[in-house]
Amino acid sequence: MSTFTFVDVQDVRFPTSRSLDGSDAMNPDPDYSAAYLTLRTDAPDEGTSLVFTIGRGNDVQSAAIAALAPHLVGRDVEEILADLGGMHRQLTYDSQLRWLGPEKGVMTMAIGAVVNALWDLRARRENRPLWLTLASMSPEELLDLVDLRYLEDALTREEALEILRRGAEGKAARIDALRERGVPAYTTTPGWLGYSDEKLTRLLHEARDQGFEMVKLKVGADAADDERRMRIAREVMGPGFPIAMDANQRWGTAEAIEAVRALAPHDPYWIEEPTYPDDVLAHAAIREAVEPVRVATGEQGANRVLFKQLLQAGAIDVLQADATRVAGINENLAILLLAAKFDVPVCPHAGGVGLCEMVQHISFFDAVAVAGDDERRRIEFVDHLHEHFEVPVRIERGAYMPPEQPGGGSRMHAVSVADHLFPDGPVWAGEQAAPDSAPAPALR
Amino acid sequence: MSTFTFVDVQDVRFPTSRSLDGSDAMNPDPDYSAAYLTLRTDAPDEGTSLVFTIGRGNDVQSAAIAALAPHLVGRDVEEILADLGGMHRQLTYDSQLRWLGPEKGVMTMAIGAVVNALWDLRARRENRPLWLTLASMSPEELLDLVDLRYLEDALTREEALEILRRGAEGKAARIDALRERGVPAYTTTPGWLGYSDEKLTRLLHEARDQGFEMVKLKVGADAADDERRMRIAREVMGPGFPIAMDANQRWGTAEAIEAVRALAPHDPYWIEEPTYPDDVLAHAAIREAVEPVRVATGEQGANRVLFKQLLQAGAIDVLQADATRVAGINENLAILLLAAKFDVPVCPHAGGVGLCEMVQHISFFDAVAVAGDDERRRIEFVDHLHEHFEVPVRIERGAYMPPEQPGGGSRMHAVSVADHLFPDGPVWAGEQAAPDSAPAPALR
Repeated sequence: MSTFTFVDVQDVRFPTSRSLDGSDAMNPDPDYSAAYLTLRTDAPDEGTSLVFTIGRGNDVQSAAIAALAPHLVGRDVEEILADLGGMHRQLTYDSQLRWLGPEKGVMTMAIGAVVNALWDLRARRENRPLWLTLASMSPEELLDLVDLRYLEDALTREEALEILRRGAEGKAARIDALRERGVPAYTTTPGWLGYSDEKLTRLLHEARDQGFEMVKLKVGADAADDERRMRIAREVMGPGFPIAMDANQRWGTAEAIEAVRALAPHDPYWIEEPTYPDDVLAHAAIREAVEPVRVATGEQGANRVLFKQLLQAGAIDVLQADATRVAGINENLAILLLAAKFDVPVCPHAGGVGLCEMVQHISFFDAVAVAGDDERRRIEFVDHLHEHFEVPVRIERGAYMPPEQPGGGSRMHAVSVADHLFPDGPVWAGEQAAPDSAPAPALR
Repeated sequence: MSTFTFVDVQDVRFPTSRSLDGSDAMNPDPDYSAAYLTLRTDAPDEGTSLVFTIGRGNDVQSAAIAALAPHLVGRDVEEILADLGGMHRQLTYDSQLRWLGPEKGVMTMAIGAVVNALWDLRARRENRPLWLTLASMSPEELLDLVDLRYLEDALTREEALEILRRGAEGKAARIDALRERGVPAYTTTPGWLGYSDEKLTRLLHEARDQGFEMVKLKVGADAADDERRMRIAREVMGPGFPIAMDANQRWGTAEAIEAVRALAPHDPYWIEEPTYPDDVLAHAAIREAVEPVRVATGEQGANRVLFKQLLQAGAIDVLQADATRVAGINENLAILLLAAKFDVPVCPHAGGVGLCEMVQHISFFDAVAVAGDDERRRIEFVDHLHEHFEVPVRIERGAYMPPEQPGGGSRMHAVSVADHLFPDGPVWAGEQAAPDSAPAPALR
């Protein structure tokens, strides 16, 4: 028997704005960051997770995670790990904290961090990678993890169980296939707005040489630039090669339709985040207007109820789950089940800090035990910051290969955390984190 | 010329859970709280506002407000107050902070606090109550305050200007009428779930004696209790008296329809928050199924895009704006314009800490300069905690009467703030704020 002793949260930031890695139409100068959580126990083990942010506010996100400590500290580890569905519900329905969302924003991401760290610890105690911990559970055990509240007009308990039972058939063979071939990746590395045409061209060539069978370009800041960059990409990659576009919420409905139609001659594979992510009706209108270009969104979708509506309204062709935006693995299980019900592929969002390492487990589990084989499934890949993780992603021939090491993927090297602590780590010493447009005197 | 010198945020909590004031189906034990903001300048004045929360997490909300200090400290006060539309957009589109929502949750409420404190300061410098500061602006000046991004598929710039120009006609006469008769209130004071039937009956009699022409009861925790309490209320108030019901998000779609139909024989005026507030499609389905019972929501609606969708989908009969949930006065101006476009009355949410004092300004402005005369308009009233405010609401013959004192209404007595500071003020000294279900050892 062991007990949770301490909720340790560290503000870790990488100065990515210095190189324009990660620049897009809404986020010109991100400093990729992690509110980094370690759940300590009085046993010689611990659970890890993080919330990805893009700089300022990472301190607020860290404070929100720390505010959840009373739900854990002093409590029995084995009891909590044996009922992670119960813990997810306890955190989600802490009524006083729920007021701060509800079920969205900083407090929900904090809950996700705690839930994911508990899953990391559970997988480590089972000596399995998280995807296999999940895949080893029965349909009934999995269903018990999922909060169906507010979903039953689209997904009943019986339907969810039926999806999981169907997913359990042939699971062993799909695990073998996963270990052999992985899940296809696509790469966003060439497509950041801050890169020159020469760098774009060079990185596109590299992407194809590395075996990627899909790439993605950022669009939305300037129509002429978008047209030129899409034209370059089409010329480099040739006809028929899937080239997705990502507008990062830049447009209103009419603007999105006009912009996508203008780029349609370059045969884009999907348009991602054409507008505000919660605007279900706008996505439905855009999808209808830009067909056959697919519509994708989800990296900033706060919870299962938003995804339910996007699916009910026929608003998306591709659902982009995120590892740290929602209330953890349990919330993502609900989202996987909804996607399976509506036969929409889940192509997770990744990049950032540790998102590739974390979200692959969700996708592997989806491939093995929920939606099963689906050639439309691809996981985003961005080749940044992997060197800071104990188990970095392994990409072979353009595919994510499943890790066999225990845990959920989020654990960083201690030296990486220490070097990038904000504001006092060596990388930041002497720097000021400047706001968008105002001088930044210290708080008194 | 003056300069912002300090963003002072205080964690103020009232131990309302001790008396069950404020208890409802989702929030059994709230401690009504305020993340209380004072924007200090080097002139002898300051701007005040607050974010209402219900206890735990008020520290996180306070930290989020403090994180916005670099946008203000050291900057010119007059320049910022002269362009509050620009300041609202600067805060909303600080790309790094926006990642934490986007436009929802803790960070958006923090932005609302800053925006509202700036409006408080501006009104004080004009020596006017906030409602009159707003009502004194031209249609063009008002439009410049509003962010129409993501709205133009429902409300164009031209339509917004037309609504404001129409609202400007006859404004002086409506100001006179407002000062004479106020805006009707309805009272939630009798209806908390924690109260006995005897207390319910006594408070209903008092409500009618005080001149209120509508009351509201909390429902959703137990169907038999709901039926009994609605029956008592109907017997006490008599046929035809408007009695609204509030389920505080307790139900799923099918549950909501079943529950409201079961209570329909008691002729409820509206059902408020029947389900999760962002579920546009569920509200539309519920509204169609429970007609002629009206559907109301909005107190936890995060931003203008949600309200746009609720209106586009024909999902609500009543829009319940909140003073501290969205990104401040500017966001609420957009919401008023949307409601006017769709001819849905705005009946603000109030109660809590200071919400009555703050939200009345929005409603008075709506009555004077946007939607104009509308007999469906009512402001919620709860008779709690007003004694802590410098300008408490004034209710006469069941109506909110407009204040003439300068400011936005949120300023508390210094002694009230000091007494209720958490965790060290005298009201809390020696108390532990316990979480829902776990022991609460201190963070190490």
